[in-house]
Amino acid sequence: MGTPDFIEHLDFLRKEIDKALKKLPIKKNSSEFEAPIMYALKGKGKRIRPILTHLAGKAFEADPEDLINAGIAVELLHNFTLVHDDIMDGDLIRHGQDAVHVKWDEPAAILAGDGIFVLAQLSLGRIREGTLKAHRCFNESALEVCEGQAMDLNFASDSEIGLNDYLEMIEKKTGSLLGCAAQLGGILGSQDEKTCESLKSYGRNLGKAFQIQDDILEIFSDPESMGKSLGSDVLTEKQTVLTLIAKKDNATEWKKKSAEARKLQIDDRLSFLREYFEQNGIRMKASLLAEQTAEEARTSLGVVPESRRNELEAFTSMILERKN
Amino acid sequence: MGTPDFIEHLDFLRKEIDKALKKLPIKKNSSEFEAPIMYALKGKGKRIRPILTHLAGKAFEADPEDLINAGIAVELLHNFTLVHDDIMDGDLIRHGQDAVHVKWDEPAAILAGDGIFVLAQLSLGRIREGTLKAHRCFNESALEVCEGQAMDLNFASDSEIGLNDYLEMIEKKTGSLLGCAAQLGGILGSQDEKTCESLKSYGRNLGKAFQIQDDILEIFSDPESMGKSLGSDVLTEKQTVLTLIAKKDNATEWKKKSAEARKLQIDDRLSFLREYFEQNGIRMKASLLAEQTAEEARTSLGVVPESRRNELEAFTSMILERKN
Repeated sequence: MGTPDFIEHLDFLRKEIDKALKKLPIKKNSSEFEAPIMYALKGKGKRIRPILTHLAGKAFEADPEDLINAGIAVELLHNFTLVHDDIMDGDLIRHGQDAVHVKWDEPAAILAGDGIFVLAQLSLGRIREGTLKAHRCFNESALEVCEGQAMDLNFASDSEIGLNDYLEMIEKKTGSLLGCAAQLGGILGSQDEKTCESLKSYGRNLGKAFQIQDDILEIFSDPESMGKSLGSDVLTEKQTVLTLIAKKDNATEWKKKSAEARKLQIDDRLSFLREYFEQNGIRMKASLLAEQTAEEARTSLGVVPESRRNELEAFTSMILERKN
Repeated sequence: MGTPDFIEHLDFLRKEIDKALKKLPIKKNSSEFEAPIMYALKGKGKRIRPILTHLAGKAFEADPEDLINAGIAVELLHNFTLVHDDIMDGDLIRHGQDAVHVKWDEPAAILAGDGIFVLAQLSLGRIREGTLKAHRCFNESALEVCEGQAMDLNFASDSEIGLNDYLEMIEKKTGSLLGCAAQLGGILGSQDEKTCESLKSYGRNLGKAFQIQDDILEIFSDPESMGKSLGSDVLTEKQTVLTLIAKKDNATEWKKKSAEARKLQIDDRLSFLREYFEQNGIRMKASLLAEQTAEEARTSLGVVPESRRNELEAFTSMILERKN
């Protein structure tokens, strides 16, 4: 989980990122535009994406100012998708505060998201090394994130989707941007195509593994230590890695069991599903999938010279070894 | 209004632009993401922004492929704002077909707009000359367009706004992108700062003059030749150049008259307001404002060498001399 020194270093980075976010070039007189944007950005985000850009770029001696600008761009892109996704998904709370469309209204939230995305592009426009490559990497990733969200929206009304569709969706929706965050470090550090592609692959698998773990923790973690409301995926009957492995393994049995589960109160439903996932080896398969994906991520880190890999390895462990 | 040759040339350009829009790099397998985007782009847009980029760039011998890519970026940015604005404003029809949020739903329309904006950035990323300047010009303009839309949304619930606020709003919401379209021609044609700034100023004033005229035509044009529903601003009591000049000239009288107007059926209300605007010189003042703004636009065109100014002048006249 990282040494005290490393954790302190991440705290320092997080503060630098928050400081940079406060200095965005928004005109102060257009407050009806600015306020929802600043509100969205002051939420308690973990800033793992810009931290990843920083650590990856630092391993290749990239310019620190470039790394801040690129990292801010990635963080803004992430926040733009959160503001819009919360409208689309009807989510009311984000980063411990009301979502923008709740605090204001939908038009204000649509516009705030749009504005945050433009600010992301402007921040990206301030980098001085590898600008064209960075621009392409960034916007190709943005397109994938949108595609992933479209798949996610579509999955809600499509009972035919399988585990592979789901894995493709999370790779686009979550993996793509972490891949971009890591790849930008290589681009800004003037690394060749092969190194940049490996960093991208590292970030994508890290994101995928993170998301698979999130699905597992959502139903299996200790409710008191899990920040978000436990079992909300179960309540909304969202497809997750667990439900899709269950379906893949034995569709008839899973159909029967999930119909039974639906009749139970939420607490009983959670216990019932936990037991089913445990006893049929579904939890184990999901954990194995997370581990394999994490291993692929770690392998891709091999392109970073061993003497400079420490921080990225500590970061990877920190992301993947959380228990809640 | 342009010679037959010029009109034919514009038709040719429009077809080239439509062709390029059909070749956008969207993955064909993600149809739930792609379909609303392609639908939004196949509407009967006039494509005046990419045409402007083309004509401005051609005057400075910019690379034609760069001009197509930059023009497509501007057209996509325009369409992104239309898709989102239609949600925010509750508009149901766009370019002669159902708006995206009507044909699909709000989540699909939010995502389609986001996707179109990403495609705009990717198209911009394909230009080879003046990339950094083009990127900055483009995204600064995008930010202004968002600010303008925020002002417009805010104005609906703010009776305190005056003529100058309104002119600032339309300069941002409409002028800014036409300014960017023209400026990109100069940037891609490797022109100096002064020339690029003049082109920007030309486009901004062209957009402003266009919008002022639009407000006038909305209430004064021949209903049969006006494409959009005549008097819809009156019906929704939207602030326009005419209502704001009326308020500025005589606030008490205007308050009284607009209260009277509100009691009338729509046809009578239109006639009543037309008469008021005519008799009190309000229509004349609005027309004068449009003409002065158009004149400022034409003056800025002075930076283009006289021998290459023809097409831009014909284009300006075509935009500003429409009667409906």
